[in-house]
Amino acid sequence: MSEEPRPLPTIEPLDEEAMASARQRWATRAKPAGSLGRIEDLAVQLAGITGAHPPPLIERPAVVVFAADHGVAADGASAWPSEVTGMMAQIMGEGRAAINTFAGVVGAEVHVVDVGVAGDLSNVPGVLNHKVRAGTASIAQGAAMSREEAAGAVEVGRAFGARLISEGVDCLIGGEMGIGNTTPSAALIGVITRSSADEVTGAGAGLPPDRLAHKRSLVQAAIDRGRGIDDPMRLLAEIGGLEIAALAGLYVGSAAARTPFIVDGVIAAAAACVAEALAPGTAARAIAGHRSSEPAARIALDHLGLDPLLDLGLRLGEGTGACLAVPLLNASAAALNNMADLPGH
Amino acid sequence: MSEEPRPLPTIEPLDEEAMASARQRWATRAKPAGSLGRIEDLAVQLAGITGAHPPPLIERPAVVVFAADHGVAADGASAWPSEVTGMMAQIMGEGRAAINTFAGVVGAEVHVVDVGVAGDLSNVPGVLNHKVRAGTASIAQGAAMSREEAAGAVEVGRAFGARLISEGVDCLIGGEMGIGNTTPSAALIGVITRSSADEVTGAGAGLPPDRLAHKRSLVQAAIDRGRGIDDPMRLLAEIGGLEIAALAGLYVGSAAARTPFIVDGVIAAAAACVAEALAPGTAARAIAGHRSSEPAARIALDHLGLDPLLDLGLRLGEGTGACLAVPLLNASAAALNNMADLPGH
Repeated sequence: MSEEPRPLPTIEPLDEEAMASARQRWATRAKPAGSLGRIEDLAVQLAGITGAHPPPLIERPAVVVFAADHGVAADGASAWPSEVTGMMAQIMGEGRAAINTFAGVVGAEVHVVDVGVAGDLSNVPGVLNHKVRAGTASIAQGAAMSREEAAGAVEVGRAFGARLISEGVDCLIGGEMGIGNTTPSAALIGVITRSSADEVTGAGAGLPPDRLAHKRSLVQAAIDRGRGIDDPMRLLAEIGGLEIAALAGLYVGSAAARTPFIVDGVIAAAAACVAEALAPGTAARAIAGHRSSEPAARIALDHLGLDPLLDLGLRLGEGTGACLAVPLLNASAAALNNMADLPGH
Repeated sequence: MSEEPRPLPTIEPLDEEAMASARQRWATRAKPAGSLGRIEDLAVQLAGITGAHPPPLIERPAVVVFAADHGVAADGASAWPSEVTGMMAQIMGEGRAAINTFAGVVGAEVHVVDVGVAGDLSNVPGVLNHKVRAGTASIAQGAAMSREEAAGAVEVGRAFGARLISEGVDCLIGGEMGIGNTTPSAALIGVITRSSADEVTGAGAGLPPDRLAHKRSLVQAAIDRGRGIDDPMRLLAEIGGLEIAALAGLYVGSAAARTPFIVDGVIAAAAACVAEALAPGTAARAIAGHRSSEPAARIALDHLGLDPLLDLGLRLGEGTGACLAVPLLNASAAALNNMADLPGH
């Protein structure tokens, strides 16, 4: 990984013509104007993303879960030991995690990608090996990884998404598994949105209240170090994570391919902030699936101008909240495609 | 319809043992405690409703759309003429309304039932004839219908749901079509929750702002007439509607059969208030699918202790918002059934 990977693609703006056609088509459907609320906006956005009017239904959604470890977990950032990352990746590979059950309900396939787990998962069935390095260094001590490693992990995500899209996947749902990853996510969101650790730090996957102050200090130290770093790839290397980088790459690649993608919780929202910094225009093509109960998620989505579809108090990650939004995308496309017109139209 | 129909069934409380088992099962699943938020609560409620632990997935959901007309539409309650009720019932029978497209996405069947449309739909394909009377009298002038007619419409809904359940339907979604029906719904909610017309009156299906004051006066007059009527069936007859009565019957019948049912928007919420008054315990077995943007919906759901799953700014009715909640029910059941346990359990 000594060379700089291929430059990131440029992102085209939403297709305004397709969006105007979608709005016009809504106006003649057999229902009171605007009565489908956000479902109408969603179909318009899908038209803008895909450039198709009316937008097609999602026929082959795919969840891609990137797994990676974080050195900062050993510095008290998480209630769970790093070993749980590999264990959960294995359970996902076996199809028995929450994300697998949700994906089954909405008809999505699930891919589990090791982009940076500390342990060796190369023989674990159902887990694909694209490891860039075996976990980050602790952001409590110094840079999480090199700039080249960050760029390499972004490229893993971009390339993985591009391959799925070339095989017919028409909607990407990024998920993640990484013990400790709400800490770098909060720090990235803190830097990019100019928020403090007090604002962006939450309990993550169940940190006890008496350890929250310590987590907040880890986040604030990382924010302080990240401030003033203008290059988003270097910021990602300094205080980010490998699965966050891969998610950012997945989003940028999906946006470049005009393929809808659904952003999940706080880690995904951090990745979306990074993706927008790396490739401006990416966020306009994002669909926010749900509002995580982690405080930084709201701050990140507001920064990106994204209004989440669901608000169910989820804070699991894995892509679970984003996955539950798939039927809403399809309902919006189905209604715009197949509803009758009002008489006279 | 000169005899009193069969007495309404009594509703059993939720199965506390099944709910406790569901909670216990969540506690050992491979995820942080509580991290699936409302999805966890939903599976617990489904266990309580069905008495099964873990609750089964929904395999055959059915939407039942009751259509009926309202005399008050001619008195300025709606932006649309009553003829639209029959026209939309026909479009639903043809499978080309919003509800049909949503039902297709979530795998639900759709039944359209004429319980009180003013025009003759007996030869319209896909519309079942269970007409109790050809529209209500205007509640601006006097009672909407007789008590016997109200009870007859309740029985239509109860019997229709019971037949579907006997045929294997395992989740009922009540929908409605009835020009003018936000007016009686607001009035019923006003009486039952002791709210004023100012609080419960909204623009419905697009009433222009300059006509809202008139609608409010219609609602207030109906509320004034309804206050002091203790018998819920007589209240329904005085200021209700035939599709509202049928929905109430559907809910009571579903609750009696321990079959989950999903409440839609403001008309459905009014029907749920009536159902709870007719057969106490019904509301505890209801799942609120979404929060309509009509103001009375929030008031009614709060009164019933129901917290809606979705909030997408819908105000169409037909069962559309409730329909979109079906995948959430299934995600909750699938996760509780099929997720791995944490190691050590």
